[in-house]
Amino acid sequence: MMVLITYDVNTETDEGKKRLRKVAKACQDYGQRVQNSVFECVIDPARLRILQAKLEKLIDKKKDSLRYYYLGDEWKNRVEHVGAKPSFDLTGTLIA
Amino acid sequence: MMVLITYDVNTETDEGKKRLRKVAKACQDYGQRVQNSVFECVIDPARLRILQAKLEKLIDKKKDSLRYYYLGDEWKNRVEHVGAKPSFDLTGTLIA
Repeated sequence: MMVLITYDVNTETDEGKKRLRKVAKACQDYGQRVQNSVFECVIDPARLRILQAKLEKLIDKKKDSLRYYYLGDEWKNRVEHVGAKPSFDLTGTLIA
Repeated sequence: MMVLITYDVNTETDEGKKRLRKVAKACQDYGQRVQNSVFECVIDPARLRILQAKLEKLIDKKKDSLRYYYLGDEWKNRVEHVGAKPSFDLTGTLIA
């Protein structure tokens, strides 16, 4: 299944900038960066739980947020991209 | 139906910062801001086309990007939020 992960990390402090880098790094290990704070992860439920546990330890829940969008298996019909930086899915196919 | 709109606008220049403000403003007229560059819009197809036409005029397609995720009508089951700034849907119900 595909899970879209979006995040807002408050980068007003150096601590915040560090959190942002760590969140991005954790997501990169599990999915495809499609925008600055948006990752698409084709992932099974067990690995998703591991990723979610990591992310929820990394963020400051009073200042930062994560949103998960569960797009299911038919996710390619649900996505449309306009403009710069078109992304590639994990099999290398261009997602228009 | 619910359409999630995410955007990346290159803000290296003053022109870019202006585009970012305009994109956010356009989205605000049609949906709910849930993160800095993420809007959820409960919208019919006709209004969506109007919004998309506006956004695609505002961005610089060489530098910026938009992604649309079509989450359908059963979208509430597809969304999960963790951390700061929980959002409210258009009917005022908290989306956990």
